[in-house]
Amino acid sequence: MTENFTTRATVAGLGDMGQALAAALLRNGFSTTVWNRTPGRAGSLTAAGAREATGLAEAFEASQVVILCVIDNSAVDELLAAAGDRLRGRTVVNLTNGTPRQARELGERVTALGAEYVDGGIMAVPPGIGTDQSFVLYSGSESAFKANRDLFEAFGGVQFVGEDTGLASLYDLALLSGMYGLHAGVMHAYALIGSEGISATDFSALLVPWLRAMSGFVTEAADRIDRDEFTKDVVSNLAMQAKAFPNLIEASKEQGVRPDLMEPVLRLFQEWVAKGHGDEDGVGVVRLLQERA
Amino acid sequence: MTENFTTRATVAGLGDMGQALAAALLRNGFSTTVWNRTPGRAGSLTAAGAREATGLAEAFEASQVVILCVIDNSAVDELLAAAGDRLRGRTVVNLTNGTPRQARELGERVTALGAEYVDGGIMAVPPGIGTDQSFVLYSGSESAFKANRDLFEAFGGVQFVGEDTGLASLYDLALLSGMYGLHAGVMHAYALIGSEGISATDFSALLVPWLRAMSGFVTEAADRIDRDEFTKDVVSNLAMQAKAFPNLIEASKEQGVRPDLMEPVLRLFQEWVAKGHGDEDGVGVVRLLQERA
Ligand SMILES: NC(=O)c1ccc[n+]([C@@H]2O[C@H](COP(=O)([O-])OP(=O)(O)OC[C@H]3O[C@@H](n4cnc5c(N)ncnc54)[C@H](OP(=O)(O)O)[C@@H]3O)[C@@H](O)[C@H]2O)c1
Ligand SMILES: NC(=O)c1ccc[n+]([C@@H]2O[C@H](COP(=O)([O-])OP(=O)(O)OC[C@H]3O[C@@H](n4cnc5c(N)ncnc54)[C@H](OP(=O)(O)O)[C@@H]3O)[C@@H](O)[C@H]2O)c1
Repeated sequence: MTENFTTRATVAGLGDMGQALAAALLRNGFSTTVWNRTPGRAGSLTAAGAREATGLAEAFEASQVVILCVIDNSAVDELLAAAGDRLRGRTVVNLTNGTPRQARELGERVTALGAEYVDGGIMAVPPGIGTDQSFVLYSGSESAFKANRDLFEAFGGVQFVGEDTGLASLYDLALLSGMYGLHAGVMHAYALIGSEGISATDFSALLVPWLRAMSGFVTEAADRIDRDEFTKDVVSNLAMQAKAFPNLIEASKEQGVRPDLMEPVLRLFQEWVAKGHGDEDGVGVVRLLQERA
Repeated sequence: MTENFTTRATVAGLGDMGQALAAALLRNGFSTTVWNRTPGRAGSLTAAGAREATGLAEAFEASQVVILCVIDNSAVDELLAAAGDRLRGRTVVNLTNGTPRQARELGERVTALGAEYVDGGIMAVPPGIGTDQSFVLYSGSESAFKANRDLFEAFGGVQFVGEDTGLASLYDLALLSGMYGLHAGVMHAYALIGSEGISATDFSALLVPWLRAMSGFVTEAADRIDRDEFTKDVVSNLAMQAKAFPNLIEASKEQGVRPDLMEPVLRLFQEWVAKGHGDEDGVGVVRLLQERA
């Protein structure tokens, strides 16, 4: 491996997230090359010491580590199509959002170009990068990950989740699922409360500790799933929940609140009860989700 | 008000929850009458000192406070139909799950029978009653609530949410919405992770702190809603989220996980973006939920 690199890292893609990543590298003293498809977005970065590449070829060649952060993986595909032999001996770190399958395919493609591949999932918004509000999941080449851990620490928390290239994306999407479920529940709750003109902030004084108390449920659910045990020590069985749940839907409609976010939960419970699992804990439905439709 | 009561409280309905409520009263030294439609469920309670009423009329007459905890409010309707004049001068505390509208109607009916009405929403499973894992929301007659606070404290935490009788049910259902949303998100997350054979418990080490960090979001969301302000300081706008979200649906399908719980969130985001709100924070969709369909 030759060591004639101009800078330690290149950031290709200077959208909100790429800008934040490059700024974090510079703040931490790493020599950095930046590139964006549309010119004119590197201003504040070059002012902070970044080198701006005049073309993608130069951006790829400049650094030992090439970080890609563009809108989606089909944009990454386009960038790689133009790489030729210029990524050989380098490490490509793809921090673009995508699916596990896409990450695995890109990993094979990058390896075939003579480079190491690390896929990443950023669990932060751009202003959080480099703070304790941020962590990034990595998977793929562990040796490349370890060799560049110092760089990655500039972005915030660092979590290597496995050599299977698809895992960072899988973990990322699973964490986002948890977030979107919580988001949906909280939106429905505030919509209901708002239907009587009650202050959401007042209500949050009950909602926040209530949800916080559920972290015990999150851990117990994991334990049930790993032990494949859904019928022991059930304090609130699915049949009963599926019977009380229509109150929630009915009350929402009475209050003028659309039940869109709650109905699929009820439907899933009812479907699993109809399949003979009414005596199970609510966590049992995870197996229904895993049944290929 | 005459004071010729045999016991302080009656618990009518000895399902899992009624049993737990009566047991908590007895543990706290309150003289208690119990009654259940189907006889033979009072055994452990009479052993603990409860008086068993031989009929509903006697159950109503026996106590100053009559606690109803049956399967649903149509069962409460049936009980009240048989009350005649026997509830006069008493306080009826309905801890049966229902909707705000049902609670308001029952409140009027009970008041017409010459009794005070308090509606309640139990935020606990039966084994949690009387522990710090439990709290109960109350609404309706504040004077009756205050006069019987000592009884209510036997059940765990006590929260009076207003004189509008429907409010305990509204708060109850709103808290349940939050819980079911969280439940849905966590189930989807574990289903995704399980599709690669990863231990849910291992994954929960990331999921629990990730969700806990969201309590900031719950509070900020409330603040946006109360200020009706969805476009300032947006770090992750709806248009962008609606664009990245299909990855989650696609990856779920690729992993053999049904996207039922996530699709309605995406549809809602897309609908709100299509209505011209793409620049808003995700919390903006609360107003879409409140648009009568
Ligand atoms: N923002 C967040 O909160 C957040 C959080 C976690 C993960 N992410 C992920 O980070 C990635 C970047 O997001 P962002 O917020 O920076 O998005 P953004 O602000 O919309 O920027 C998009 C970037 O992608 C570039 N791009 C688009 N199509 C391209 C193509 N065909 N070839 C080359 N470059 C192309 C754009 O270049 P031009 O300037 O030439 O258009 C721009 O630099 C996305 O995958 C996103 O999902 C974002
Ligand atoms: N269990 C929980 O985790 C939980 C949590 C919060 C709130 N709640 C609420 O608490 C209430 C009771 O729940 P539970 O868990 O005790 O239910 P349960 O174990 O199924 O018991 C149902 C009770 O309702 C009685 N009942 C049903 N129909 C009746 C009628 N027409 N007339 C008189 N009594 C009738 C039953 O009497 P028989 O014995 O004669 O059938 C039984 O005592 C429900 O509204 C439930 O939603 C329960």
